[in-house]
Amino acid sequence: KGASYASVYTQSNIRSENIKWNLTNTKDKVNALLINTRNANAFTGKEGYKSINNIASLLSELLTKKQIHDEEEPKKIKNKNILFASTGTIGETFPEDKIKSALPNLVDKIKYIQNKYIWIKAAMGILTTDTKPKLSMEECKISGTPVKIYGVAKGSGMIHPDMATTLGFVFTDAKISSNVLKKLLKKNIQNTFNAISCDGDTSTNDMVSIFSTGKAKHPSIKNPTDIKLKDFDHSLNLVLLNLAKRVAADGEGASKFITVNINNTKTLEDAKKIAFSIANSPLVKTAVAGCDPNWGRIIMAIGKANVNINLQKLSIKLGKIKIIEKGQILQSYNEDDAAVYMREEKKIDIVVDLNTGKKKFTAYTMDLTKKYIEINADYRT
Amino acid sequence: KGASYASVYTQSNIRSENIKWNLTNTKDKVNALLINTRNANAFTGKEGYKSINNIASLLSELLTKKQIHDEEEPKKIKNKNILFASTGTIGETFPEDKIKSALPNLVDKIKYIQNKYIWIKAAMGILTTDTKPKLSMEECKISGTPVKIYGVAKGSGMIHPDMATTLGFVFTDAKISSNVLKKLLKKNIQNTFNAISCDGDTSTNDMVSIFSTGKAKHPSIKNPTDIKLKDFDHSLNLVLLNLAKRVAADGEGASKFITVNINNTKTLEDAKKIAFSIANSPLVKTAVAGCDPNWGRIIMAIGKANVNINLQKLSIKLGKIKIIEKGQILQSYNEDDAAVYMREEKKIDIVVDLNTGKKKFTAYTMDLTKKYIEINADYRT
Repeated sequence: KGASYASVYTQSNIRSENIKWNLTNTKDKVNALLINTRNANAFTGKEGYKSINNIASLLSELLTKKQIHDEEEPKKIKNKNILFASTGTIGETFPEDKIKSALPNLVDKIKYIQNKYIWIKAAMGILTTDTKPKLSMEECKISGTPVKIYGVAKGSGMIHPDMATTLGFVFTDAKISSNVLKKLLKKNIQNTFNAISCDGDTSTNDMVSIFSTGKAKHPSIKNPTDIKLKDFDHSLNLVLLNLAKRVAADGEGASKFITVNINNTKTLEDAKKIAFSIANSPLVKTAVAGCDPNWGRIIMAIGKANVNINLQKLSIKLGKIKIIEKGQILQSYNEDDAAVYMREEKKIDIVVDLNTGKKKFTAYTMDLTKKYIEINADYRT
Repeated sequence: KGASYASVYTQSNIRSENIKWNLTNTKDKVNALLINTRNANAFTGKEGYKSINNIASLLSELLTKKQIHDEEEPKKIKNKNILFASTGTIGETFPEDKIKSALPNLVDKIKYIQNKYIWIKAAMGILTTDTKPKLSMEECKISGTPVKIYGVAKGSGMIHPDMATTLGFVFTDAKISSNVLKKLLKKNIQNTFNAISCDGDTSTNDMVSIFSTGKAKHPSIKNPTDIKLKDFDHSLNLVLLNLAKRVAADGEGASKFITVNINNTKTLEDAKKIAFSIANSPLVKTAVAGCDPNWGRIIMAIGKANVNINLQKLSIKLGKIKIIEKGQILQSYNEDDAAVYMREEKKIDIVVDLNTGKKKFTAYTMDLTKKYIEINADYRT
């Protein structure tokens, strides 16, 4: 019957045709989300845009018919009530006919199943070079009513925090207006999908959306500052963070997951700059791949972040191992311990403390391995 | 007898102790340049700084003595007449004693040789993970007097255009004041060393210097706008560009050299942003490594450069092969031809035309290969 929804999209100046379509055909309710892989429908021009429209026409027709079969109160579904997500190669003709010919069977198969394990299929369906499906589920309460928040996502190249990153879709049965969803998504995307980076590249197709069916029995939420949203807000953040971390952990070729904690900076902007300077540094990321506690490269990445640093106050840790405290290498620091940490742990924590303020930011990334090159040098062949 | 000189240094907010020392001990003449590899003398604090000073004391003493032997008019060489360059691991204790114990022999070996092949030794002496020495030589005229400009450089990781990049040293017998050298270096660094990028990382130690001995017999040049400098200015640019290109071509793990030409933008800043967005994109660089004419990734990199793009005017070429003209994929474009180009050529030209203005910028980089990971994952071990 349609869901309220909100989306955030790539900040690239070149956007795919499906994203342009989504932005143009604004709607209050979404009845369907169609996701395709293999072809990005980017730089496909008017033809690519027209294809989306043609597919929307067929899909809305099929869905309207399907409703007549399944529902008591059928409602005509319009083109604009469909949302499109695409991922794949840029610049290749969008395979409109191929997609259209698959739609009848696809719509036919839609079932209303009360089984949360079915979500793994959705998570698997959207994978590209990912090695693992990404699924996250939380349950919370609004006004005492239990509410579900389920999300799926896919990575795993071209991942950099420019608004929406990669594809992520969150579904809830909460009864929340599109307007409120928009505010919640914008807020919660900042320290989740906007905190991950795999290779510093940004796709033309990134999007993260949330849909709320309103099937839950609590009173409808139309005010973004409604106190009843507190639990939901928190759980939504957990779902998004979990998905975002999984995207980073499964970044192309990743062998280790890296968390970059920047603490006590003057401004949030400073913390972000340093966090991403480290998270995007090929030299830091190859050091992690090589299990090398080469903290000199962390220093290098802090230095190039274009933030004023007071070296006398700088502290650095690898996990719990203190290396630098207030600008001094600790007497107690033993590189062998750090080497063991780098070798044994699958999750590496880099902790940098500037001790010049109270702001902080955490970024998530993965190491840079030969596998990344393999995947990306041979992507199309 | 000392040379006029000028230097540009890394723009990192964390600078090595030798660079701090160079900046503090300003001088008009330089009598010696001491370069060490293996240890960056960065994040070594007061001790690292003191070590430089101690080494300077010994070296100035030795050089003063050496002069007494060799020259008719010995002059006391001061600490501040020495310039230091370091490259290597960050954060390790600077091996002052090791360097000091090597100095007497080093000074003893200094000879005045009129043989330009001796420069290859200097070029080789400063290499680290480079695979080839980088040497460039031009001869030109000032007021009819022949003048030499010889340069050496080393790369090849942590290379990104933040003022000075990597280590580069240019020597000339021209008679030019330090002040004029400074202006010439600042100007000519922009489209040479500041136009290369290997991995987007910036060292704490980058520096490029020029030294002029004044042995040539032309009238001394003290005015940076002196018309007599025209030929020299041009030749200096050639030397710097040649060195910079060699640094990029020999970037860690490089199998192909990439030139990124951005033409007809509104501002120089726009052209630079797009050029480096492409040159630093791991996805573009791995595509080149894989000989894949995946121009979609070029589109992606243009899109994320944070420059307003008029897609209807955008043109893209790989070498001479036109792919996109005014926003349209050319009918004549044959991917097989592009694949042959990518496979057969060692030098790949990416040409992007925005057709929105008259500015342009060219950046130089190399592909991203498994070898890069190998070198950087195992650097210290």
